[in-house]
Amino acid sequence: MPFTYNRTIHFQDTDAAGVVYFANILTICHEAYEESLIMSGISLKNFFTNPSVAFPIVHAGVDFFRPLYCGDNVLIRLMPQQLSIDRFEVAYEVIVGEVTAAKAVTRHVCIETNSRTKRELPENMKEWLEMNKRGAESAERRKSREVI
Amino acid sequence: MPFTYNRTIHFQDTDAAGVVYFANILTICHEAYEESLIMSGISLKNFFTNPSVAFPIVHAGVDFFRPLYCGDNVLIRLMPQQLSIDRFEVAYEVIVGEVTAAKAVTRHVCIETNSRTKRELPENMKEWLEMNKRGAESAERRKSREVI
Amino acid sequence: MPFTYNRTIHFQDTDAAGVVYFANILTICHEAYEESLIMSGISLKNFFTNPSVAFPIVHAGVDFFRPLYCGDNVLIRLMPQQLSIDRFEVAYEVIVGEVTAAKAVTRHVCIETNSRTKRELPENMKEWLEMNKRGAESAERRKSREVI
Amino acid sequence: MPFTYNRTIHFQDTDAAGVVYFANILTICHEAYEESLIMSGISLKNFFTNPSVAFPIVHAGVDFFRPLYCGDNVLIRLMPQQLSIDRFEVAYEVIVGEVTAAKAVTRHVCIETNSRTKRELPENMKEWLEMNKRGAESAERRKSREVI
Repeated sequence: MPFTYNRTIHFQDTDAAGVVYFANILTICHEAYEESLIMSGISLKNFFTNPSVAFPIVHAGVDFFRPLYCGDNVLIRLMPQQLSIDRFEVAYEVIVGEVTAAKAVTRHVCIETNSRTKRELPENMKEWLEMNKRGAESAERRKSREVI
Repeated sequence: MPFTYNRTIHFQDTDAAGVVYFANILTICHEAYEESLIMSGISLKNFFTNPSVAFPIVHAGVDFFRPLYCGDNVLIRLMPQQLSIDRFEVAYEVIVGEVTAAKAVTRHVCIETNSRTKRELPENMKEWLEMNKRGAESAERRKSREVI
Repeated sequence: MPFTYNRTIHFQDTDAAGVVYFANILTICHEAYEESLIMSGISLKNFFTNPSVAFPIVHAGVDFFRPLYCGDNVLIRLMPQQLSIDRFEVAYEVIVGEVTAAKAVTRHVCIETNSRTKRELPENMKEWLEMNKRGAESAERRKSREVI
Repeated sequence: MPFTYNRTIHFQDTDAAGVVYFANILTICHEAYEESLIMSGISLKNFFTNPSVAFPIVHAGVDFFRPLYCGDNVLIRLMPQQLSIDRFEVAYEVIVGEVTAAKAVTRHVCIETNSRTKRELPENMKEWLEMNKRGAESAERRKSREVI
């Protein structure tokens, strides 16, 4: 079972057509990616703020199958895959009820941030890829975010 | 105890200064408001999408005490208060660890959406105000923020 | 010559990596689309707010070639193309200086908003497509981007 | 005459209520601030990306008088004022047609970014404050953003 992320559609995500603004679907998928990094023990602050190694997105794509509304409860299923020594991609399915509302993909390349030259994926990212490949064991341990 | 909402700071919330973009703090507070509406049994879809009665924000204010970083786990404390038959405000505290990172307020007026004329707050909003009032004594100690 | 749109990169567009957040490139491209609609005499308000006919995006893709920084002055080149009686796509090039920073595409389907059923493109959109087609030869050389 | 900034309301700025999402008004005002910095000869990239001196917002407030719709052409009037040796505020009026749709304010403090300690405003910001105090001479030289 792949890693999953639960998310309520916020008012902010929507546009004047009454549904989620198209580019925000990618943002919601990126949240799932961030959450899966946290789950594997990575500090988001170190990962994204002035890191020596970064994983910028070189391609993103998304297909929309049905609109999403404010208040919809979506589940994002995340499936990463290593593509080469310095590249990986993440496939996402955005599911509402039993229906796939969108599918997306982000492709990442590993770089030294100072020189912006490519380099091999570091160990923690290989572990993250391995962990999410195996499946949902870790996802099951994930606590659902609690609102008291 | 007032209603609280947990939220991880996402990469998308930040800007090139490495911290949360100022206006996004209000967006995060609005998420807490939405979550508290859900908790009181209100359907967000009906509430925000083509409703006959709406609660547009007529004033918002926010004070920033310390920056927030990607990955920070924040707790938003929400304290609503009825101001008149057709108005209420919501005070928010954004807390990271034991520290208050920001305080915000949104003021709302109740309108008929077709005519955009003011009207009395409906029962479900009075119930939401009552339900969230119990812990709101601290709200009274909150200083109103003035914009001159 | 295709339609072009000038845009300064705002602080809000960036993230903690110091560059434009990936999904915001699509948002900036959509601004160019909106601006080209205005230029062809279409009212954005009528087009996007409670219209009887709408053109939701069913696919979006973007390739990133170099990062964009706050203050960068970008030029977006827009090349739309009709795909069938009820579909069109828009290709975008995001250029900074003489360099292509990103290429994107959005694919749209024409629907009746009430029934959400497909219908033929209306006259004003055919005119918009025709008007912007004249310079679009370069679009034909553009490779379609595949999401597998 | 104060500095002014023209801006079309984008689809992305709106929410499912069909109007501009409240927090986005502050974002649009911040764009006006950025534009006025550019006009006074400041490089936005240096100003916002890894600067040694920064001007974080410690307070923001906004009052809404009428809703803004996708396609609305707004004019933002910007009026900065020095408050102390290390503080200034910027007042904004958001005007559509002849009507004030919103008024906002941002209050900024000058800090050394490494230590995050307060310091005196640097010369270029004093000049910017002076220039925008005198009025519209510079604003008149501002070229309207051209879309060809």
